[in-house]
Amino acid sequence: MTTHTASDVPPGILYGLGVGPGDPELITLKAARVLNSVDAVYAAASSKNSYSLAVSIARPHIPDRTPIHMLQFPMISDGGARQDAWTANARVLIEAVEAGRRVAFITLGDSMTYSTYGYVLREIKRQAPHLPVISVPGVTSYQAAAASLNTPLVEAEESLLVVSGACGGDHLRHCQALPDTVVFLKAYRNVDDIVTALTEAGRLETSVGVTRCSQPDERITRDVRTFRGRQASYWTLILSKKRRDDEPPVAD
Amino acid sequence: MTTHTASDVPPGILYGLGVGPGDPELITLKAARVLNSVDAVYAAASSKNSYSLAVSIARPHIPDRTPIHMLQFPMISDGGARQDAWTANARVLIEAVEAGRRVAFITLGDSMTYSTYGYVLREIKRQAPHLPVISVPGVTSYQAAAASLNTPLVEAEESLLVVSGACGGDHLRHCQALPDTVVFLKAYRNVDDIVTALTEAGRLETSVGVTRCSQPDERITRDVRTFRGRQASYWTLILSKKRRDDEPPVAD
Repeated sequence: MTTHTASDVPPGILYGLGVGPGDPELITLKAARVLNSVDAVYAAASSKNSYSLAVSIARPHIPDRTPIHMLQFPMISDGGARQDAWTANARVLIEAVEAGRRVAFITLGDSMTYSTYGYVLREIKRQAPHLPVISVPGVTSYQAAAASLNTPLVEAEESLLVVSGACGGDHLRHCQALPDTVVFLKAYRNVDDIVTALTEAGRLETSVGVTRCSQPDERITRDVRTFRGRQASYWTLILSKKRRDDEPPVAD
Repeated sequence: MTTHTASDVPPGILYGLGVGPGDPELITLKAARVLNSVDAVYAAASSKNSYSLAVSIARPHIPDRTPIHMLQFPMISDGGARQDAWTANARVLIEAVEAGRRVAFITLGDSMTYSTYGYVLREIKRQAPHLPVISVPGVTSYQAAAASLNTPLVEAEESLLVVSGACGGDHLRHCQALPDTVVFLKAYRNVDDIVTALTEAGRLETSVGVTRCSQPDERITRDVRTFRGRQASYWTLILSKKRRDDEPPVAD
């Protein structure tokens, strides 16, 4: 990265913003302020679907004059093509910042939890390790799900395991001592195996599915076995708690 | 709980608000709006220390006319006395709501993650299971720590384990397959054993301590062994990542 003096080009910066799980009010004051002040906003679009829930949450905080750019992050299994897309997208952001612009890359939920921004950040560290970057955390879907269910995720000496549905139920099977709470994000992937692992662990009756959490059409599924044999929604997570003697199961 | 008609008493409600990790801007719009609209705000005070960081974050959003009440949650090991305090504090909130008041109970970080509100909620479910309660999630300290370090917590097929320092390093030892990322909250408790477990797991060089995360005097400790043999701050967490071939360790 080229170094500029203050009189040369104004200092550019990249903000990585988590905008929360879906409810437009679950964005932080900080993310809202940054959105109001930057020169441009970038968001990820899958090549199949340019609609971005993150953009719809952010939009009320973005002045009309501020451009919003969609970056294509193709959801494909071809590692080479995917890497090329990440490299090119990171390049777009780096060039904007090096030209002195203040830009925000927005992501649903938390910027550091299974987000596209994680890949962007990795590429930026590789291509431009000294680029000014500020990451702003956001509320995750599993926190919003626990709030919606009025059930604590973890208390006192309990443990919380957060995994992606990409691994099915294997992370749960690999625990000698079962975590008190397990969250399966992106449970639409391998949902049959996740339900099998929960059954093996004796935790069916304390597991609950939450779909489109914190959005107006949020849906709660008390019997996660009903997910079996059909495609669960992309927006589905499963929250599984250890049975406690002193409270009713979460699925009640 | 007694049922009132609309013309009788206005409907009371309890909001459980997570106000974020410390940075006053990391509160959500929703928590800020609720604080501005309720009839009273309640927060936990330990019997040793009535200062509440949660109150200082919330205060700019609370109108001058709105009372702020500190509830004593003694940090003692006597289970009976502690339970009595929780029961009494829950009773205060229940009575306020049953009298038709809209009240908020605030908690640092997320309302559902190792929070005093979790105990309050349990007691309310026991004493007044039909009380109107809305929980509002907040950003946690470990999300803010990852953002501060510009390092993703989890990506792709990785797993995240969140534990309390109350158990030392045992949760980590009980994983057959090591989680990709482990967060030790309240690492001041049993910090020696946590550091030992990280050493056993070969993860010293990818672990980092963050103290007073997102606050003006945030401090980052690259070598967590320096916590050994002395009292780590109450506000310390340790973030430990699996070494990845394609990125520098988090502690660099």
